[in-house]
Amino acid sequence: MAGADPTLRPFLWRAAKLYPDTEIVSRTNRGVERYDYATFEDRTAQLANALDAAGIESGDRVATFCWNHHRHFETYFGVPNSGRQLHTINPLLPDHHIEHIVENAGDRLIFVDASLVEKLEGAADSEAFESVEQFVVMDEEVPDTDLAPVTDYESFVADESADYDWPSLSGDTPAGMCYTSGTTGDPKGVEYTQQMLWAHTMASLTPQGLEFDESDVIMPVVPMFHVNAWGMPYSATAAGATHVYPGPSPEPADLAELIESEGVTFTAGVPTVWLGLLEYLEDNDADISSLETIVIGGSAAPKSVIRRFDEEYDVNVLHAWGMTETAPIGSVSHLKDGMEEWDADSQYDKRGKQGLIMPGLEFKVVGDEDEEIPWNGEDFGELYIKGPWVTQSYFQRPEANEEDFDGEWLKTGDVVTVDEDGYIKIVDRAKDVIKSGGEWISSLELENALMAHDDVAEATVVGVPHERWQERPVAFVVAKARADQETLKEELLASISEEYPRWWAPDEVVFIESVPKTATGKFDKKVLRDQYDDQSLVDGDVPEEAAPDEE
Amino acid sequence: MAGADPTLRPFLWRAAKLYPDTEIVSRTNRGVERYDYATFEDRTAQLANALDAAGIESGDRVATFCWNHHRHFETYFGVPNSGRQLHTINPLLPDHHIEHIVENAGDRLIFVDASLVEKLEGAADSEAFESVEQFVVMDEEVPDTDLAPVTDYESFVADESADYDWPSLSGDTPAGMCYTSGTTGDPKGVEYTQQMLWAHTMASLTPQGLEFDESDVIMPVVPMFHVNAWGMPYSATAAGATHVYPGPSPEPADLAELIESEGVTFTAGVPTVWLGLLEYLEDNDADISSLETIVIGGSAAPKSVIRRFDEEYDVNVLHAWGMTETAPIGSVSHLKDGMEEWDADSQYDKRGKQGLIMPGLEFKVVGDEDEEIPWNGEDFGELYIKGPWVTQSYFQRPEANEEDFDGEWLKTGDVVTVDEDGYIKIVDRAKDVIKSGGEWISSLELENALMAHDDVAEATVVGVPHERWQERPVAFVVAKARADQETLKEELLASISEEYPRWWAPDEVVFIESVPKTATGKFDKKVLRDQYDDQSLVDGDVPEEAAPDEE
Repeated sequence: MAGADPTLRPFLWRAAKLYPDTEIVSRTNRGVERYDYATFEDRTAQLANALDAAGIESGDRVATFCWNHHRHFETYFGVPNSGRQLHTINPLLPDHHIEHIVENAGDRLIFVDASLVEKLEGAADSEAFESVEQFVVMDEEVPDTDLAPVTDYESFVADESADYDWPSLSGDTPAGMCYTSGTTGDPKGVEYTQQMLWAHTMASLTPQGLEFDESDVIMPVVPMFHVNAWGMPYSATAAGATHVYPGPSPEPADLAELIESEGVTFTAGVPTVWLGLLEYLEDNDADISSLETIVIGGSAAPKSVIRRFDEEYDVNVLHAWGMTETAPIGSVSHLKDGMEEWDADSQYDKRGKQGLIMPGLEFKVVGDEDEEIPWNGEDFGELYIKGPWVTQSYFQRPEANEEDFDGEWLKTGDVVTVDEDGYIKIVDRAKDVIKSGGEWISSLELENALMAHDDVAEATVVGVPHERWQERPVAFVVAKARADQETLKEELLASISEEYPRWWAPDEVVFIESVPKTATGKFDKKVLRDQYDDQSLVDGDVPEEAAPDEE
Repeated sequence: MAGADPTLRPFLWRAAKLYPDTEIVSRTNRGVERYDYATFEDRTAQLANALDAAGIESGDRVATFCWNHHRHFETYFGVPNSGRQLHTINPLLPDHHIEHIVENAGDRLIFVDASLVEKLEGAADSEAFESVEQFVVMDEEVPDTDLAPVTDYESFVADESADYDWPSLSGDTPAGMCYTSGTTGDPKGVEYTQQMLWAHTMASLTPQGLEFDESDVIMPVVPMFHVNAWGMPYSATAAGATHVYPGPSPEPADLAELIESEGVTFTAGVPTVWLGLLEYLEDNDADISSLETIVIGGSAAPKSVIRRFDEEYDVNVLHAWGMTETAPIGSVSHLKDGMEEWDADSQYDKRGKQGLIMPGLEFKVVGDEDEEIPWNGEDFGELYIKGPWVTQSYFQRPEANEEDFDGEWLKTGDVVTVDEDGYIKIVDRAKDVIKSGGEWISSLELENALMAHDDVAEATVVGVPHERWQERPVAFVVAKARADQETLKEELLASISEEYPRWWAPDEVVFIESVPKTATGKFDKKVLRDQYDDQSLVDGDVPEEAAPDEE
């Protein structure tokens, strides 16, 4: 009885056998590089052999600190297919988070982009990096760096055989790992087993998911350190599609050029990226007529973006929802049969929601009294979800497991409504995380940093709508009587800038008499947020270079 | 770590929640009945409660002996979702096979169609049925029958609650079971775990599989006792599609009427069925314009059928290959990107092959020397396949497991070529089974029956091409010197008719001097088959009522 264990290996095997000439295209600091699936498969074997030679054992964790390019893609198969676990680190995190993550995961080798070497050096000079035995720079040569021992990727794999005796793996073998940037405490590790990634990949292929086939040219703009670029490197391979990786810090012009030159049919990223592309297209000639679908996730897709891509460019914007814990895609806002006859506005309303649950998963929405709320588009509660690609625990975090799971159910922390048609819509985050340009900022950490100052009595930080970055943090501070507010504000911002990335700094620091409280004595952030409802922050409030996507 | 176990339950949950009003349509002896997913889900709960009340335990096997209708569909979810195992029995098998199957499986309850009660009585009056405690006739009343104890389905479920506390099941839980009608010895049981059916369902949804969405109206003509009607009751549910079940013994007129009245978009069955439909459409007005896709499987899809549906009805015939052991779909003959520009003939050639492996599976083709054969469309060898929905053993058959598996690999017994594009094509069956109208006839059993006669020295049976039934058996007999050939022929046919279904009887008995042998001394069936290459059997050689689809 029972079939073979579900693993990633057959996806690559199939692509290399059925579509050997189909291309992987990669924008690097050396220009646009390209090769085919046959070469890609060979290089994953070389990589696996190189890891063997470096003494990295089956079951060891191998980390990446990289943008989206072909070498990063090679680690997506070369590492897990050889029985290791791929841990993708978000290079936009503050150093002490990176230190925690590497120490917690016990990574033995880190692949790092040349452009991110300096950032990694800030964290690597720490005992937390004790487990790391080797750094490999994703280039043809090693830049000047304190990282040691260090080599470059091409030297690392150069002399290795393109044959590898791929092991038979159990579906339970840890294959991937990604840390959440939660609001409370240290980032929490989510492990992805071979089976979870297999199941997510198959679900992504379906018409209820992303519906890939080999005629697609797929460009993941969402970073490959964000939950496996929403799984697209795997699902595009399973479909035998063409891959386009836009490399480090792609500007709208870079994206437009790649869409046009490579005939991209499908792309995906956070709303900020697509707002940027729309702005760019207004002023520049670019032919994006090959583009059929943009998947927006990470934060809510503005209706105006959905409308403009539809009306001006005949591009279908598909809103998808997910979390690190859901590997990540949980729902997609496909229109149901018949809804395409609706007026455009009603369609955009539906498509702006988080959408319909993917087949294979289950969810429920739990109200204050632990009751399931009705599907009426008005009542709301916390979204619980479970399924073969939804994790049931965090890595070495029993206290968080206690809090965030209920048996098989993941408590998502998202507060949602469900309408009569079954479309999920997020109306609040239970944990008030601030989403800025697709990156998350922990309001709690900022609050703690503010309250560490002797002159601060109370402080809270809320996300305020921002035209370009979706949200930016605004701090509300209750100063002690003796404080000079102007000096205090300067000191607070300076201390945050020391400890956190520049783009974590609140756009505004507002002094108030007291923080409004809920009935149970908790900070009532809603009251503060509402003050900003009619006065969204606009570009210019935050310096361009402090924006996460450019960092 | 790890996600929830993959099980069938979320598919039905999702359909009932997102598409509560979508219909299940069923042609029964009382006309066309219909209800919606919401009702269907309630009835599966009633069924599960009724099984509880009947004392059927978790893990017990529950059998069906039924055609395609809504009640049979209810067992597809009600039985496995409540932790039992659904064993679908092929009612076209000879009685002693049915006895073996029921005894081997230890079925505790059998659902049986009213029209098949008489057939089941032939086998049920045997000690092999000792485990069977209850018969349930799939109707609103019980016909006159010796089966006991017996009730009708509607009485069985009538007083039961539509709520059921569905258990959390492990992915390894046996959910389904089907016996192969092999050439050698007794039928072999294949068990399907929850995970296998889950994986097959997800794969079926993909564009590389059958690509179902909720706008589809799906009519499985392939019997539900044939490997779960190729999984469509599950995959159509996962997509939230409309189901149409054509009931007992559908004639071409019935199929045409259902396609027209229900707007069927997708259907599937063996070639015989579609040849019959084409004939019917020649002489009758029927609007089948809703139909988009016909999946042909079970035996090779004649190019002429593919061509006629394409040219005359704008219907895409998709050839699929699979086995009981592969749950069943393993490959589908989708055209690759770009091939739709080819001339029609070249397209039909590709589409007539067994097609491209589904994502998630792996195969290899092994030659005489255990070497993998090149993909050149000419070299051939035995097809080996493995994956999450391919079984790795038979039920209680260690000797067959030794023979038919090689580690994770299933040795399919099919001899194939693979062309440069990766399309698999079956060129022979390693085991010479005869496929007649979508049913299999064991050549070996017939040979054994023939050779049991005292006047037979040697005998072999081969499948000979037949215009309507694809193949019909022809017996080649070496008679002993004393025999009178005319009498012997009559005695042989009479004895086979006693022991086997009427349609197993060879169409012709040819007396020969000796059976041609291969170098290794085995019967060389190819030499005998070649004699019939230019003289296909035609309709009329076999009586209409003896045809399996009409039985």
